[in-house]
Amino acid sequence: MIKKEHLPDCPVATTVELIGSKWKLLILKFLLNDTMRFSELLKGIEGISQKVLTSTLKSMVEDGLVIRTDYDEVPPRVDYRLSPLGEKMRPLIEEMAKWGTEYKTMI
Amino acid sequence: MIKKEHLPDCPVATTVELIGSKWKLLILKFLLNDTMRFSELLKGIEGISQKVLTSTLKSMVEDGLVIRTDYDEVPPRVDYRLSPLGEKMRPLIEEMAKWGTEYKTMI
Repeated sequence: MIKKEHLPDCPVATTVELIGSKWKLLILKFLLNDTMRFSELLKGIEGISQKVLTSTLKSMVEDGLVIRTDYDEVPPRVDYRLSPLGEKMRPLIEEMAKWGTEYKTMI
Repeated sequence: MIKKEHLPDCPVATTVELIGSKWKLLILKFLLNDTMRFSELLKGIEGISQKVLTSTLKSMVEDGLVIRTDYDEVPPRVDYRLSPLGEKMRPLIEEMAKWGTEYKTMI
């Protein structure tokens, strides 16, 4: 987990530090709609490898954005959902969707 | 410039494709406030190298987010400002500032 004292002063830089990667943003986008299993995320996010998805989810759990639930079943069942803090990213992701739509009409 | 036909279907993924990097987001943040010269951006963005700033600005100009003006002076004067499309990122960057502020109070 990123410690408070290591975060940049600027709040935009803080957000960039926490979610400024292509994969994190795409994971957020998926989890805003639903709780998802690892395999569903792997299938849904085009181009991500199993290794990168594992490490990215791990850091998002550590940073308090995502909650991992292990149901202790055999075969293993684990799923991921947004924490309340992750849930607060909704307006940001919605702004991204709006901008992306606009960009496509303008180019 | 990213061609329309190469953009992902999902508008969030489109936005991620275009600005889903730490440096691009920080450059946007600075240019939302003002037109800036290369040296000012280099000084303002903590940790960025001259080489990375050059290539990142170049790709943002190519993608139509940033406008580069060369005043043809000696010594050279070049500055960067947002295009109307880049200007439309303002609500997104504002959401990032809001979320970053909230994150800091919650951890």
